[in-house]
Amino acid sequence: MTAEIISVGTELLLGNILNTNAQYLSRELADLGITVQRESTIGDNHGRLADFVNEAKSRCDLLVFTGGLGPTADDLTKETVAACFGDELAFDEAEWDKITGYFARTGRETAPNNRKQAMVPTRGHKIINNHGTAPGAWFEQDGHCAVLMPGVPHEMKAMWTESVRPLLMERQNCTLHSVTLRVLGGESDIEYKVRDLLENPNPTAAIYCKTGECEIRITARARSDEDGEKMCRAYAKKFYDMLGDAVYDEDVAGLEETVVHTLQEKGLTIATAESCTGGLIAQRLTSVSGSSEVFGYGFVTYWEQAKAKLVGVDPAVIEKYNVVSAPVAVQMALGAAKASGADIAVSVTGVAGPTGGDEVRPVGTVYLGAARDGVACVKKLFVSRPDRALVRARAAQAALELALRLAQGKVPAGTQALTAAQQSDDEALAALDEVFIR
Amino acid sequence: MTAEIISVGTELLLGNILNTNAQYLSRELADLGITVQRESTIGDNHGRLADFVNEAKSRCDLLVFTGGLGPTADDLTKETVAACFGDELAFDEAEWDKITGYFARTGRETAPNNRKQAMVPTRGHKIINNHGTAPGAWFEQDGHCAVLMPGVPHEMKAMWTESVRPLLMERQNCTLHSVTLRVLGGESDIEYKVRDLLENPNPTAAIYCKTGECEIRITARARSDEDGEKMCRAYAKKFYDMLGDAVYDEDVAGLEETVVHTLQEKGLTIATAESCTGGLIAQRLTSVSGSSEVFGYGFVTYWEQAKAKLVGVDPAVIEKYNVVSAPVAVQMALGAAKASGADIAVSVTGVAGPTGGDEVRPVGTVYLGAARDGVACVKKLFVSRPDRALVRARAAQAALELALRLAQGKVPAGTQALTAAQQSDDEALAALDEVFIR
Repeated sequence: MTAEIISVGTELLLGNILNTNAQYLSRELADLGITVQRESTIGDNHGRLADFVNEAKSRCDLLVFTGGLGPTADDLTKETVAACFGDELAFDEAEWDKITGYFARTGRETAPNNRKQAMVPTRGHKIINNHGTAPGAWFEQDGHCAVLMPGVPHEMKAMWTESVRPLLMERQNCTLHSVTLRVLGGESDIEYKVRDLLENPNPTAAIYCKTGECEIRITARARSDEDGEKMCRAYAKKFYDMLGDAVYDEDVAGLEETVVHTLQEKGLTIATAESCTGGLIAQRLTSVSGSSEVFGYGFVTYWEQAKAKLVGVDPAVIEKYNVVSAPVAVQMALGAAKASGADIAVSVTGVAGPTGGDEVRPVGTVYLGAARDGVACVKKLFVSRPDRALVRARAAQAALELALRLAQGKVPAGTQALTAAQQSDDEALAALDEVFIR
Repeated sequence: MTAEIISVGTELLLGNILNTNAQYLSRELADLGITVQRESTIGDNHGRLADFVNEAKSRCDLLVFTGGLGPTADDLTKETVAACFGDELAFDEAEWDKITGYFARTGRETAPNNRKQAMVPTRGHKIINNHGTAPGAWFEQDGHCAVLMPGVPHEMKAMWTESVRPLLMERQNCTLHSVTLRVLGGESDIEYKVRDLLENPNPTAAIYCKTGECEIRITARARSDEDGEKMCRAYAKKFYDMLGDAVYDEDVAGLEETVVHTLQEKGLTIATAESCTGGLIAQRLTSVSGSSEVFGYGFVTYWEQAKAKLVGVDPAVIEKYNVVSAPVAVQMALGAAKASGADIAVSVTGVAGPTGGDEVRPVGTVYLGAARDGVACVKKLFVSRPDRALVRARAAQAALELALRLAQGKVPAGTQALTAAQQSDDEALAALDEVFIR
């Protein structure tokens, strides 16, 4: 089965809105085994839209439209596609009741043009919109189908998952099962390692790269959900065999979610002491619902005085080793654990740029600390592209990785350790600094 | 002049990448007064691409391509478009030297297929890529033009601003001048107020909505940059007259930048005490380069004990008024200012959800505090969509707005004030709580 995705709206052609619908639908159609051959954005112009629909209809089996279902004169997707598919629209009392009810609840009155939204196909059928006033529509002629959904992303996604996807699965006589692996590491590295696994017809596997990690989505089409799950599990095993514990979780929104869940499972708590990330780690942890069970205290210690006052960093250590150094990262982590009473604490001190770098510590140099049970481990990160947002994002990601490993009871790879007793021992600090500085 | 934007790449049709290039080019072409009639995404398939180019060439004056300029067999935009425009490609020694030099610097060797990237138009011309190995290309036939740029966003944007836009300005015999106004407030509100100003041919004005604010971009096409600037200023004045001090700045990345710059100008410092935003405000402030001049201390006080320990909130006040209350927001702000010695402090306590709400404080209820010179003002925010990320984003935005107004020496609208002396006065706290609770 072949498809095209068509986004309708002059505001898209002007660049006023980023089109995220097309990417979402591309993934979803790929999951269904439907080949997307073209994606197009067309303005709110009846003639150009009609020409386009007639062309596209001859090229593929399924046209997936978003946008242009609103009440204004500009919104003409439904009328235009109906005509191209030899269908007619009729007024639908049930839809009209829904619209008037919605307006009444929000304290407004309907205008005459709102009746337009209550028009539905007579030969095709309407698609219920449970999250807005514009119903969707399905048209069909000579084996070609068109499905029309609203342009507002959350309404479109809901209509897709609640109505359109089930309809297409029924037609394809299959169910879908997906699992998403989250993988830590350099993006191109991972992609290169698993490249042969990305060329499979069923289950399919697709990779989406993010800062410091990748998402690998495995999707199986099967007769039953049980079969689909088995196929996914078997295929996921190939990735686990290849990537080991770089695969940190499945079906989560990000590393922060895994850290919070792991801490919850183990009954542990965490604190943060952030300089160059400036609150980004705390923000990511607290973005997870339920994080208040494991996170109570975050210290954003941007100034040297704040590092001393809030998490007990020794000013003499800053003076001797520089504020961006392994000894300071260690003292921040141990100090944050102590000041908060948390089981684990992570710390970051670095040069995010664009200014502030020097020869020994160019922009992108970051020291990360992580403490548990009176031992702190420390790691150095260098981000070669001197981009402030990137340096901070990579640093936060690396700190969360340290937190995860400590929560799992593992020694994080590539770190040096120091005990709380050693943190005020000149020789130990000097030796630690030496490891990273040379 | 009419144009179409064409993104080439099967990975886009699979949804593996979000297409941000199309939006960028849409805005840029609109600025140049060029009407974009259609945007398309095509896979790496010679036949389908050639068909498409022939169609599109007959429909408009300018075809703007991104992607498909790499060294692999899949990358065939240049060859295909050259054939459709009756041009031929020839090997370019200078480009080849650049490619081999780039590989040598990164310690790799070129493969035979890299020679493909050194092929350039013979009747058209190449476009220098200063940020990667793939040169762009310009083709022209019978008054129709095609411009080919790389798909990697930062390479494409650089090639566009350094080479393609100047070339198009020269052809249109004009220069461009832009100014972007940043406006606080509800998105649909602002759009409705200024709707008549958005329909102007030159300068054009476009609105882009974000969480809790909008961006209005004014662009003038003129013979000289001086004329363009005058036109922009005159048109901007209309927005200022209509929106007043809701327009908080021009040409900045966000409210955090204006807050940091205002504090720098006034020689003031700021601290944060965050509960429901969990570090988001500190993170936004420190995302601004130079923020260390004005921001030294951030407290993420997620637990009640942390509120007491780090910023001196009285546990009895939490007990009596609830942790999500105006008295607690006031004490957090005053306490953060005191603990940090900062001139200004902002605080947030609220219910971000999805759980934790009750009848008096449903999910989305947030109290914001802001202190300066021993006086704290407090404000209540309610976000009706119970979406954790949205509640936190709106709360952070509102807190930064309070910070800006205090830094400007203004009394923030819609707030109640309390002095440091009153913060431990039962009657004053009860009266304050009463204002918001009823």
